[in-house]
Amino acid sequence: MVIQPGGQSRNMKNSGLNMSRRIRRTPFTNKVEEFGVSGFTVVNHMLLPKAFQKTVEEDYWHLKSNVQIWDVSCQRQVQIEGPDAEMLVQKMTPRFIKNMKIGKCLYVPIIDENAGMLNDPVLLKITENKFWLSIADSDILLWAKALAVALNLNVKIDEPNVYPLAIQGPKAEDLMVSVFGNKIRDIKFFNFDFFEFRGTKQLIARAGYSKQGGFEIFFNGYELGGDLWDTIWKAGKKFNITPGCPNLIERIEGGLMSYGNDFTRENNPLECNLDNFCSIENTHDYIGKKALDQIRINGVKQKIRGILFDGGPCPTCSIPFPIYSKNKTLIGQITSGIYSPRFEKNVGLSMILKDYWNIGEQVKVLTTDNIMRNGTISALPFSN
Amino acid sequence: MVIQPGGQSRNMKNSGLNMSRRIRRTPFTNKVEEFGVSGFTVVNHMLLPKAFQKTVEEDYWHLKSNVQIWDVSCQRQVQIEGPDAEMLVQKMTPRFIKNMKIGKCLYVPIIDENAGMLNDPVLLKITENKFWLSIADSDILLWAKALAVALNLNVKIDEPNVYPLAIQGPKAEDLMVSVFGNKIRDIKFFNFDFFEFRGTKQLIARAGYSKQGGFEIFFNGYELGGDLWDTIWKAGKKFNITPGCPNLIERIEGGLMSYGNDFTRENNPLECNLDNFCSIENTHDYIGKKALDQIRINGVKQKIRGILFDGGPCPTCSIPFPIYSKNKTLIGQITSGIYSPRFEKNVGLSMILKDYWNIGEQVKVLTTDNIMRNGTISALPFSN
Repeated sequence: MVIQPGGQSRNMKNSGLNMSRRIRRTPFTNKVEEFGVSGFTVVNHMLLPKAFQKTVEEDYWHLKSNVQIWDVSCQRQVQIEGPDAEMLVQKMTPRFIKNMKIGKCLYVPIIDENAGMLNDPVLLKITENKFWLSIADSDILLWAKALAVALNLNVKIDEPNVYPLAIQGPKAEDLMVSVFGNKIRDIKFFNFDFFEFRGTKQLIARAGYSKQGGFEIFFNGYELGGDLWDTIWKAGKKFNITPGCPNLIERIEGGLMSYGNDFTRENNPLECNLDNFCSIENTHDYIGKKALDQIRINGVKQKIRGILFDGGPCPTCSIPFPIYSKNKTLIGQITSGIYSPRFEKNVGLSMILKDYWNIGEQVKVLTTDNIMRNGTISALPFSN
Repeated sequence: MVIQPGGQSRNMKNSGLNMSRRIRRTPFTNKVEEFGVSGFTVVNHMLLPKAFQKTVEEDYWHLKSNVQIWDVSCQRQVQIEGPDAEMLVQKMTPRFIKNMKIGKCLYVPIIDENAGMLNDPVLLKITENKFWLSIADSDILLWAKALAVALNLNVKIDEPNVYPLAIQGPKAEDLMVSVFGNKIRDIKFFNFDFFEFRGTKQLIARAGYSKQGGFEIFFNGYELGGDLWDTIWKAGKKFNITPGCPNLIERIEGGLMSYGNDFTRENNPLECNLDNFCSIENTHDYIGKKALDQIRINGVKQKIRGILFDGGPCPTCSIPFPIYSKNKTLIGQITSGIYSPRFEKNVGLSMILKDYWNIGEQVKVLTTDNIMRNGTISALPFSN
């Protein structure tokens, strides 16, 4: 296996993911390997653990009733700092951010001049002149930097040595209190505060890529990574902690989208149900405003919806599954899908044409194992 | 294994690389799976096969005396088209490109305002107003697009449906002639021409990420991918063709650098020995010119050199190996390294401080298996 860090690769048949410096390790990679990681993916040129010893279903049930520790360092920060920082951030998103307070997180779509989605980061306001965009999988640093260079803005843009470690699950708060003290309870959802660890100051936000509650430690101090992991692990034992990662079943059921999977540059934010994150008033100018205003006037042609589909557990959705109407017209595609033990059906996120996006619409799904399945359009998040 | 396309993932322990739509498949992925791919990496959000049935060494010897077919679709094209296309491309690189002829390829460093490397693509001039940047692993599309938007340039920037398939090795020319005809022989190194395949027009360049000679078919026509693969495979049998991929031993011996591995945004092009690809005269203005001019005046502090080091086959170089002087000062790092059966030593690419970069300098290398090894700084490419 090439996924071992010090492994011998010379006369070995490689399998899975081939490692190199370009696929960056994190302050926690040694730990996730020690704790039995068995699969990775790559996000922002960095390793994201995607599987441990448990199956996705076992992991799902555990996450919904316990607490997990996730190495989500790949959520890189694009730090924009300087007198023009707010101006640049505001140019990059249709969401109005000028009344944002320090200590807040905001989910902000980033779009291009055609209103195509470039990323959907969480924005953190660190000081009046310093912001972090905690990004999904695209090099927003290049987008931001080129704008700053071409517009001659007074900002410094960098990727700081900050590596998010997520603590997720219903027992996350009690665990975090046991490590960082009672002040943890005062952090409201999508807010952050600072906490001490081994003499360092760490930013902790109540946020995370699950609907089970939890925190993200925006960890700085690479060398202390193993120490932080061990400290949380030790305190987490009585809360039944396990190593984990974003869980595909839980993510889809919760309606959490993934850039590159559920939407791309081909999609605008209104297709992604991000209307509430795009100012409808003329609060500010931003890249893509003209295009987005026009799309709003015309109305969107397709939208992301949930879908329940049967026929037994579906294959890995590594290429979208086409969706057909009853009369065999192509009407959309499933972009993420997996079997849900809770619904005892497959659940999916789908991009689907207007005439067919009503909740309850009956459709057909062709999965890559060539099985035509019956499906039903559902609201997001999924609920019983 | 999650690397099977239609594989069942529900109750299986994942290993290696976890698949999703975000890690894009190519027109040839079905074929490389059929032909026994056993490892991938991810470049530009797309699968790059990195291992088949052979070991890296077996593959190395085969490549040096036969011919291989490589799915290098991940070398994405950033297409810049329109009246301002040349102006934008010229702004992006210190290399003078305004006298470039249609049908030519040029290796062009792309740098930021601090002269930090952002990518090192091959530029293809398709028409007077249409260029492709065939990129390494970073979202140059975002860099180019943001410049165009902010500077209000009259260009259209896109990622076309073009998927390079490389035919590499000393028998590549004979194989390509047998498929596309004698006109193949007329293509000079780093030139391209157009060829017919099943009624489609395909751009073929004499280029590729090896020093063994060969071609890259910039394939358009997704659905014909399997057909193209099979056609070449069938014709290649008498040339002893195998499926392959960029070979780490051959790449390092040949001094071929890899963006993200051997240099990053922290490095300038002169540190990467790209002096010949940066105009030294005042031919044109470009982003980073001021910084690069200053670096040229001051001289660089470090440079990429070859290194030979002993102590038996080294581990996978997934984090740089530190290099020390005889008196234990840290003087550089190895960024790519592997055992070379030809030299019967490890070969590496290293970034090394000025006082120690002379050929023949004796150094120490600490590999991740905690072995301190003796090393010698070497010229690039390596030669006996």
